[in-house]
Amino acid sequence: MKHTDAAAADIRSLKIQGANAIAKAALRALAADLEEDGAADVQALAGVLAAARPNEPMLRNLLEAFCAGDSRAAGGPEALAELLLARVELEERAIAEAGAGLLRQGMAVFTHCHSSTVVAILLEAHRRGVRFRVFNTETRPRYQGRITAAELAAAGVEVVHMVDSAAKVALDGADLFLFGADAVLASGYLINKVGTGIFSVVANRYDVPTYCATHTLKVVRDRADEDVEQRDPAEVWPDAPGGVLVLNPAFDKVHLKYVTAFITERGLLKDILSSPPWPG
Amino acid sequence: MKHTDAAAADIRSLKIQGANAIAKAALRALAADLEEDGAADVQALAGVLAAARPNEPMLRNLLEAFCAGDSRAAGGPEALAELLLARVELEERAIAEAGAGLLRQGMAVFTHCHSSTVVAILLEAHRRGVRFRVFNTETRPRYQGRITAAELAAAGVEVVHMVDSAAKVALDGADLFLFGADAVLASGYLINKVGTGIFSVVANRYDVPTYCATHTLKVVRDRADEDVEQRDPAEVWPDAPGGVLVLNPAFDKVHLKYVTAFITERGLLKDILSSPPWPG
Amino acid sequence: MKHTDAAAADIRSLKIQGANAIAKAALRALAADLEEDGAADVQALAGVLAAARPNEPMLRNLLEAFCAGDSRAAGGPEALAELLLARVELEERAIAEAGAGLLRQGMAVFTHCHSSTVVAILLEAHRRGVRFRVFNTETRPRYQGRITAAELAAAGVEVVHMVDSAAKVALDGADLFLFGADAVLASGYLINKVGTGIFSVVANRYDVPTYCATHTLKVVRDRADEDVEQRDPAEVWPDAPGGVLVLNPAFDKVHLKYVTAFITERGLLKDILSSPPWPG
Amino acid sequence: MKHTDAAAADIRSLKIQGANAIAKAALRALAADLEEDGAADVQALAGVLAAARPNEPMLRNLLEAFCAGDSRAAGGPEALAELLLARVELEERAIAEAGAGLLRQGMAVFTHCHSSTVVAILLEAHRRGVRFRVFNTETRPRYQGRITAAELAAAGVEVVHMVDSAAKVALDGADLFLFGADAVLASGYLINKVGTGIFSVVANRYDVPTYCATHTLKVVRDRADEDVEQRDPAEVWPDAPGGVLVLNPAFDKVHLKYVTAFITERGLLKDILSSPPWPG
Amino acid sequence: MKHTDAAAADIRSLKIQGANAIAKAALRALAADLEEDGAADVQALAGVLAAARPNEPMLRNLLEAFCAGDSRAAGGPEALAELLLARVELEERAIAEAGAGLLRQGMAVFTHCHSSTVVAILLEAHRRGVRFRVFNTETRPRYQGRITAAELAAAGVEVVHMVDSAAKVALDGADLFLFGADAVLASGYLINKVGTGIFSVVANRYDVPTYCATHTLKVVRDRADEDVEQRDPAEVWPDAPGGVLVLNPAFDKVHLKYVTAFITERGLLKDILSSPPWPG
Amino acid sequence: MKHTDAAAADIRSLKIQGANAIAKAALRALAADLEEDGAADVQALAGVLAAARPNEPMLRNLLEAFCAGDSRAAGGPEALAELLLARVELEERAIAEAGAGLLRQGMAVFTHCHSSTVVAILLEAHRRGVRFRVFNTETRPRYQGRITAAELAAAGVEVVHMVDSAAKVALDGADLFLFGADAVLASGYLINKVGTGIFSVVANRYDVPTYCATHTLKVVRDRADEDVEQRDPAEVWPDAPGGVLVLNPAFDKVHLKYVTAFITERGLLKDILSSPPWPG
Repeated sequence: MKHTDAAAADIRSLKIQGANAIAKAALRALAADLEEDGAADVQALAGVLAAARPNEPMLRNLLEAFCAGDSRAAGGPEALAELLLARVELEERAIAEAGAGLLRQGMAVFTHCHSSTVVAILLEAHRRGVRFRVFNTETRPRYQGRITAAELAAAGVEVVHMVDSAAKVALDGADLFLFGADAVLASGYLINKVGTGIFSVVANRYDVPTYCATHTLKVVRDRADEDVEQRDPAEVWPDAPGGVLVLNPAFDKVHLKYVTAFITERGLLKDILSSPPWPG
Repeated sequence: MKHTDAAAADIRSLKIQGANAIAKAALRALAADLEEDGAADVQALAGVLAAARPNEPMLRNLLEAFCAGDSRAAGGPEALAELLLARVELEERAIAEAGAGLLRQGMAVFTHCHSSTVVAILLEAHRRGVRFRVFNTETRPRYQGRITAAELAAAGVEVVHMVDSAAKVALDGADLFLFGADAVLASGYLINKVGTGIFSVVANRYDVPTYCATHTLKVVRDRADEDVEQRDPAEVWPDAPGGVLVLNPAFDKVHLKYVTAFITERGLLKDILSSPPWPG
Repeated sequence: MKHTDAAAADIRSLKIQGANAIAKAALRALAADLEEDGAADVQALAGVLAAARPNEPMLRNLLEAFCAGDSRAAGGPEALAELLLARVELEERAIAEAGAGLLRQGMAVFTHCHSSTVVAILLEAHRRGVRFRVFNTETRPRYQGRITAAELAAAGVEVVHMVDSAAKVALDGADLFLFGADAVLASGYLINKVGTGIFSVVANRYDVPTYCATHTLKVVRDRADEDVEQRDPAEVWPDAPGGVLVLNPAFDKVHLKYVTAFITERGLLKDILSSPPWPG
Repeated sequence: MKHTDAAAADIRSLKIQGANAIAKAALRALAADLEEDGAADVQALAGVLAAARPNEPMLRNLLEAFCAGDSRAAGGPEALAELLLARVELEERAIAEAGAGLLRQGMAVFTHCHSSTVVAILLEAHRRGVRFRVFNTETRPRYQGRITAAELAAAGVEVVHMVDSAAKVALDGADLFLFGADAVLASGYLINKVGTGIFSVVANRYDVPTYCATHTLKVVRDRADEDVEQRDPAEVWPDAPGGVLVLNPAFDKVHLKYVTAFITERGLLKDILSSPPWPG
Repeated sequence: MKHTDAAAADIRSLKIQGANAIAKAALRALAADLEEDGAADVQALAGVLAAARPNEPMLRNLLEAFCAGDSRAAGGPEALAELLLARVELEERAIAEAGAGLLRQGMAVFTHCHSSTVVAILLEAHRRGVRFRVFNTETRPRYQGRITAAELAAAGVEVVHMVDSAAKVALDGADLFLFGADAVLASGYLINKVGTGIFSVVANRYDVPTYCATHTLKVVRDRADEDVEQRDPAEVWPDAPGGVLVLNPAFDKVHLKYVTAFITERGLLKDILSSPPWPG
Repeated sequence: MKHTDAAAADIRSLKIQGANAIAKAALRALAADLEEDGAADVQALAGVLAAARPNEPMLRNLLEAFCAGDSRAAGGPEALAELLLARVELEERAIAEAGAGLLRQGMAVFTHCHSSTVVAILLEAHRRGVRFRVFNTETRPRYQGRITAAELAAAGVEVVHMVDSAAKVALDGADLFLFGADAVLASGYLINKVGTGIFSVVANRYDVPTYCATHTLKVVRDRADEDVEQRDPAEVWPDAPGGVLVLNPAFDKVHLKYVTAFITERGLLKDILSSPPWPG
């Protein structure tokens, strides 16, 4: 089907990136095809889209919710897609509100990499008048931490920025460690940007409350685990001499015991694995 | 006195750098002034040199050994200086030999930053025919890890290189964590490149034997502690936006309990603080 | 409004103390004013009462429940207040029942300070015929542990009493560590009598199950944290010599990871932060 | 009553063994007596059966569910008994399905002793086409681990078998530690085969996700604790010389903090103690 | 022999107290008897004195050194006794010097109870011009911490004083934990004031360097262990109600792994158990 | 050379076993050949013997000491060999004496497998009148723990014996964990019977002092590590079904941080790696 195939191609080629953007494009393509051909095999189309990016739980979970939904009651496939997407957007806002409640005057917050959910939480808390200090890492090799630092500083949040390996200085007195997630796995781990693992061990070592901000659509229910993607070594060292093997893992697997609680659209959840599948 | 003043100026201005180069320049300048003026106040001159770089224990300990030495018996101040420097050089070689004995076929060794002592150990083991794999970090912000990787790879050692925050992947199965030291403090810490602290916590968490390779001249006996130097923020983020405070600490303080043993010119020492002052 | 103002004054001046007594006085004052003036601004009055003791979550949560309640359906403001208070009282009893189920013949239970909830649990278990031994600390500087010891001994419970710093002797073989809470914070901590923090670290070190007995009204949902009150230094050392600064913190902040489960009116809860706001 | 008395005798004499077999026999005997005498005291009969094996929570919880059930609506006592038993059987299957979702291609799974629930999980995952490796212990003194190894190998699962004390070799790189439970106690422990305790400490030490597969009927709600049964010393050393006291404890008590999550008929539960009594 | 018997009686009756005072009185009495009767059985007399206070390693080790000494060469028994005592006094001073080297400007030092060795270290560091802050506990039940606080404050040292159970507040950011010892046991423990155990666990939890200041005469070489003395319960709670058993242990046993290094007359020693018997 | 070749053959074929028996046979063969042919190449002969059992540090270290010795001064090669062997025997006795000093009335001692050094320590302490209780494991698959139990019980020592996996019950309140060593490696591990690793982790978890009794001849100085021998699977499960891979590792590698101190012929040593090569 043409919408589905086009969207799947764009997702495969990384033309469309980011959990939310991918989910949005996929759902709309699926709906468009169904609008055009009411007899189309929705499960097959959803399978094509899910396969375009195998390690994207939000995509798969949303497709599953769409297939399980009642498009007639919603007013047609496109209306159903928009309904689901609007709900997710509202719920992202709810995460920001729930997370903002954790911040208070004078706190030192440590974060790593760039997570739009984490930034939304911090900005919401700042908007409420809470004044705190964020310690953030540059996040090699692609410096996404600089995006975090710039977005927060632009809004007037106090930011202290450092190289990744200097994190102990900041963690060893922090009041909060806050990060996002790419996926939460039933097998006892979450997946997030490489570095999250080492910082979680250290935060736990020094009793720093550790919160993972994530929509429950990131929970992987139908599969046990995901492989960790290796990215282009040239991102790390463009002209590495011969004989040096450069590894560039994108993610860490973090044992769930290191997480104090998850900040979700359903509020704070310690026990995210037993939370029912979305939309619940 | 002219030699001493010149050397002190060069040390202060960072024209002379590195624990060994500084020690060599200082000792030779001091000896030259004493050769020219036998009545010069050796303690005062040594004080000038020591003050040129307050956090350099090898410098201070060598100056102290020079002052306590018998220059007449040695054949004059310059002969004494050369005697001491030759001894240190021989002992650096002894550290490499002692450390090389820790490596064996098939081991995975983790190291951070660049330490000429660590490189000498690894090259000596490789020269003996032991084949192992070194995991090393790039060591932001100045990428000294690349020097380590290049030196080892040039000699045919297998090197796996990665960003600092990916270290958990490598540490979580390593047979050895090996690093150098800028200073060992009687107050229960050692000082080394920032990142050593976080990696030591993680190595200990997963039972990786952790060795610090250092000459005992790096032990600080007459002072309790050293301040951690903050370097130029532009090394981390040259064009950081306004409102972002960039910290650039050069060193970590690492609790001595994390060190399995020190590799020294006297062999392996667990209890380096009770080892007698050099030359012993 | 006169009832509200009088109650707020008594709460501020510490004439009324204790989470339950404060809540009772505040709710009744608020209801009395509303009975007299049906047009009174209930939110404003509640705000005055809440501000009289900022760190009292039960007070604030009960006021909020009152404001959200339907006083007409209840038969008027006073009837609503009494309804809510009666429910809390019943639920305190439910906590005692739930907690008593944790005790068994021959157990060694460690507790600190005085918590009426903890005492109620222990007395209920004793009433059921379970015979156990309680180790309790004196709880300097005000010796509230003596109240606990006396109340339990009077009921025939076997009590072993000791100074606070001797706790390791008792904890290092205890079957249960049981304490109350002043507040449970969404930011990952609970607040309880100073000493709870150190004992929780040690209980966890030696695998002693650690239960916090508390009504869910103690959960702070609308604020991230509370400042730790410093009390009069003279309680610690009445005639301290000049030059000695005496600190007298009333509370410890305890990381939630140290709590095996909370004993609440809803039964045992590990994940108290995700429990819905009272009355649920 | 004759059915109840006969079943109780068989349970006491160990003629009937295993949580499921005991529960089945007891419920059917109770129902048979009630069919024959509609006026029989169901509570008294249930008490006789429960007392036949004091440390069998599934037995007691099922009897309680039977007593609380509406046998008239079900079509008589026997129909009610069969209804409950059929439900448990279906739910055992649900546990296998939920657990199978945790396995993935290439995983290393560690297990101890023999648990039919654990074997069902592993076989279900294998049936789904997931290929993994199971490390299992022989489980002295009765070698139940050999049953596990044989059952899995017969189905084509890759099994690596070893003595109990060699477990560190397998645990120190495992992706999953999976075991069953005899009971889960509200006082903060679970009860399982001796050895589970030591392996849980080590699994936690090295961050191995640790899952306990159990029906929620194993949760003990009405009593705090259970005594650990001591079995016949001759099982360990048949001809032990005089002067050697041989201990043969059947079970370990394992602190709940060591469990990542429980695999239950209700899905994954971290907070099993707050799950409502069966059938919920 | 009259001097020995009199001294032994005074030691037994606690008329003479403190490791140093006891050692002094015993050695002088023994020497006086030997002066009067050159044929006296020195081993027997030493045995009488050692038995007067069984848990006093300095007493026993000094008596042993006296018996092994050459009193003729020293100029008679009394001269030998004075020689040994003078040496110990000099060495106590050496401990103060060695320990003072650990303090630096701005440090936060935590200490518990009163140890004259610890106070001497802190005063020596202060005398050298180092300015630091001491956090100290009151040390129930006999408030020896007040002696420490008063002595330090009188000398101008900044002191922050608190109840024992508030120690986490101070330890959780301290640069140094410093305490004395009553005995160091070959079986892997040291003995010191009750509370040292719990504070050592917490200091280690948060990576606070932990130093025990003690003369090597406190090492017990000929016996494995000591019983912990229970003192008068009335010290804790003079009018405890019937049914409350008050425990009043004087000491804690602290695992040697918690000690970063011992500050001794021989300098810093990690491995005090392998240090040769005094006088070495 | 005939003596050397014969001894090497017997060692290779396991006809001669045990560190002491092997060392004795090798040294005597080497000496015999040298007596017969004064011009024989002692280094070459020693190399043949050392190669007969590569993982036997006592053998290699003794051969090295023999080669470095002055056989002329000793009265010929055989006299030198006997001198060295007699010294080792005396020193084994010294280990027993040093170790016995750690035991005291009423202690609970945990040990694993059979070590003649450990048994000698326990028997010496018992001979001195100290009464303690030994908890020991059967040590699958070859039940060497039964030898330990029988030897101790025969001498009147109280022994409690159990399966390996029940060790937590005994370790979790033990005063001492005592075991021997096959080798101590400069790379930060010791090698001992499989099971030592898991018990060391648990002993450390619960603060049980952990002592390794070994002659310093077991320290490997010229090589970094040893491979762990895999023994015959039939020892574990003689008739294992097809498809079950049975592993039978003989040894564990134990991180040196878990050892409180080594009991050696030189007394207690924490820092065994820095002890000079034998004979010192």
